[in-house]
Amino acid sequence: MDNNARTIANRSGALLDQMRAARPLVQNITNYVSMDIAANALLAVGASPAMVHAPEESPQFVALASALVVNIGTLSAATARSAQVATASARQLGRPWLFDPVGVGATDYRNDVAMELMENRPTILRGNASEIMAVARLAGLTTASAAPRGVDSANTTSEAEQLCVELASRAGCTVVATGEIDVATDGKTLVRLGNGSPLMTRVTALGCSLSSVMGAFMAVAPPLEAAVAALAVYGVAGDMAAETTERPGSFRVAFIDALDAITATDISTRLKVLA
Amino acid sequence: MDNNARTIANRSGALLDQMRAARPLVQNITNYVSMDIAANALLAVGASPAMVHAPEESPQFVALASALVVNIGTLSAATARSAQVATASARQLGRPWLFDPVGVGATDYRNDVAMELMENRPTILRGNASEIMAVARLAGLTTASAAPRGVDSANTTSEAEQLCVELASRAGCTVVATGEIDVATDGKTLVRLGNGSPLMTRVTALGCSLSSVMGAFMAVAPPLEAAVAALAVYGVAGDMAAETTERPGSFRVAFIDALDAITATDISTRLKVLA
Amino acid sequence: MDNNARTIANRSGALLDQMRAARPLVQNITNYVSMDIAANALLAVGASPAMVHAPEESPQFVALASALVVNIGTLSAATARSAQVATASARQLGRPWLFDPVGVGATDYRNDVAMELMENRPTILRGNASEIMAVARLAGLTTASAAPRGVDSANTTSEAEQLCVELASRAGCTVVATGEIDVATDGKTLVRLGNGSPLMTRVTALGCSLSSVMGAFMAVAPPLEAAVAALAVYGVAGDMAAETTERPGSFRVAFIDALDAITATDISTRLKVLA
Repeated sequence: MDNNARTIANRSGALLDQMRAARPLVQNITNYVSMDIAANALLAVGASPAMVHAPEESPQFVALASALVVNIGTLSAATARSAQVATASARQLGRPWLFDPVGVGATDYRNDVAMELMENRPTILRGNASEIMAVARLAGLTTASAAPRGVDSANTTSEAEQLCVELASRAGCTVVATGEIDVATDGKTLVRLGNGSPLMTRVTALGCSLSSVMGAFMAVAPPLEAAVAALAVYGVAGDMAAETTERPGSFRVAFIDALDAITATDISTRLKVLA
Repeated sequence: MDNNARTIANRSGALLDQMRAARPLVQNITNYVSMDIAANALLAVGASPAMVHAPEESPQFVALASALVVNIGTLSAATARSAQVATASARQLGRPWLFDPVGVGATDYRNDVAMELMENRPTILRGNASEIMAVARLAGLTTASAAPRGVDSANTTSEAEQLCVELASRAGCTVVATGEIDVATDGKTLVRLGNGSPLMTRVTALGCSLSSVMGAFMAVAPPLEAAVAALAVYGVAGDMAAETTERPGSFRVAFIDALDAITATDISTRLKVLA
Repeated sequence: MDNNARTIANRSGALLDQMRAARPLVQNITNYVSMDIAANALLAVGASPAMVHAPEESPQFVALASALVVNIGTLSAATARSAQVATASARQLGRPWLFDPVGVGATDYRNDVAMELMENRPTILRGNASEIMAVARLAGLTTASAAPRGVDSANTTSEAEQLCVELASRAGCTVVATGEIDVATDGKTLVRLGNGSPLMTRVTALGCSLSSVMGAFMAVAPPLEAAVAALAVYGVAGDMAAETTERPGSFRVAFIDALDAITATDISTRLKVLA
């Protein structure tokens, strides 16, 4: 295993404490499904959420926030414009921003909007394996591993791994693909984490909420470290919640409780860094 | 009792298994209140939700989805246009679509939008008794039983029953009125089910979420069978959840858990088909 | 202590019973984050929520509703217009309306919209201390106590108290500032309540939901009485919920349960009216 990967992963607990101490204000332009749970996840983990999207105020608000998270789940022309204005401001002001290209690959419109937003150079790009592979394809990367099987069939992050590395280099950002194994890379170092529960795919918008939590860590750490710390916190919290229930309704409640309860010690004890 | 009604009701458990095996992708153009719980209900029961509404991508997305659900709860000119474009695509592509005319009867604007959408011929129309009676009235059906008492006063489904049958024939769709007794009819066969808990009216958007779940069953069965199976699953899950709590906050959690836990055996054991 | 303050506070339990008997229809133009929990809070406490915002139907719907609540959390040009049309209707029809100026002070756009809405003369203005201080400043009140420390730093309601009184007189409405101590005043009488739990700040949109619940009380009582009764119910329910858990996910569930369970006796036993 890359020693660097382990070193980065081992910083996660300390970054959790640092993030909580900073209590960063995270601006979210996110979909309607995730509004509630993303805000609650940020509050539970110790950050301060703001769901502010109007183009009329975004340039001013981006300057107040420590990080910006953009998610195109319930895309519309209005949210596309909101995201465009806010990410342009973030780029201009040097604020870190994360792009969660929900559903990219499913329609031409979604692909076009995603590619426009990529031009504002996200700090982190996070999606599931199929979404990352779709962005890679749209960015012109076509390798043997780039064969998405459609929106309904999930790819594994192992299939996406090589493309993540190439896309990180091509796009100049940290790329995160989440799934049974979570992968994060800046194009040089690749970190694989193995925590989390299948129940996390049975609750809506937990991926979107991870993007928001990752936004909080972007406020206190460089991109790859931030991505890995957020994955570590989220995955270990998922493990903790899954020990209390096997049903999705109560898992959702237990997971928010776990984001509040989790400590640096929980992470150092439970984190699974994979070779 | 109509033997056909019992035969249809008895298929519900098998349809649940069939739907879970298919894991259909259900596109929802729904209100902001129900976004979270409708997606969670679909995930819990075993389907795959997508909240996609932009007119720019709906025609392409409708073709990917197995069913479309349209709900006008938080109506706006933008959502009316989204619904219009998506339902026109569904009609053209032969995709089943369900219409949940939330609050119809309350304002002229809502009535106008509802009637425009009815022109795209929903596969299933689902509402509470007052909403179904309002649509029937707007469709020109005025019988003795069609005397809605305003938006604040609930009608019973018994009052709406005859109008449901007439509206199903007139509009050429399956009509479902939900309440203490749930009624479904294609204009020929009428099925009455008696499961569910009063707590279901104390949690917001559980009716909207039922529409989404019904959309999942439309993907694997003809309209009346799909409607009855969804009512059966929902009502029995409500019974199961109500055995664990009498308060609405914890009921909501228990209900999502029950949608995950429910089996064909639970349905065959507990389903109340009424004469 | 002002005897009048105690007299008003003591009416809270009776007003809860009265509100539940009336089951008022409350129209909410609220943000996307609070849609779910505000509707659930209204249902749990015994009122009837409607999330209706389209300018095309608001004038007609405001006439059907007993009260209107406007919240600018996820502000956009569309929601600003919705709020403008609805509050103008409320003013014209003499319907009570509550304004929750979320995030006012953070951007010029938000300030402009807030001030435009103030011209339609809300019945109650409710916010946290910083928000009330920002409105006061925008309304031309600049006293020694009016020194907001930015959007990220919370002011206490003690700092805001004097401005609340002045703003109530200036704007001709009841002003409510919520925090560790909740303050309500009509410019003459000032009521301070000390219930509630710090966990209430760890769940998103509980403040927004309080505004909605306050709307339900506006339907059955004069503004100051309504404000105090809502604060009493909310604060005591928070105390009750906090006795069952110390984590935010399960607190949210317990709090909705408590809004359903709470009785006039709970209030008379537990209410902390401060001198």
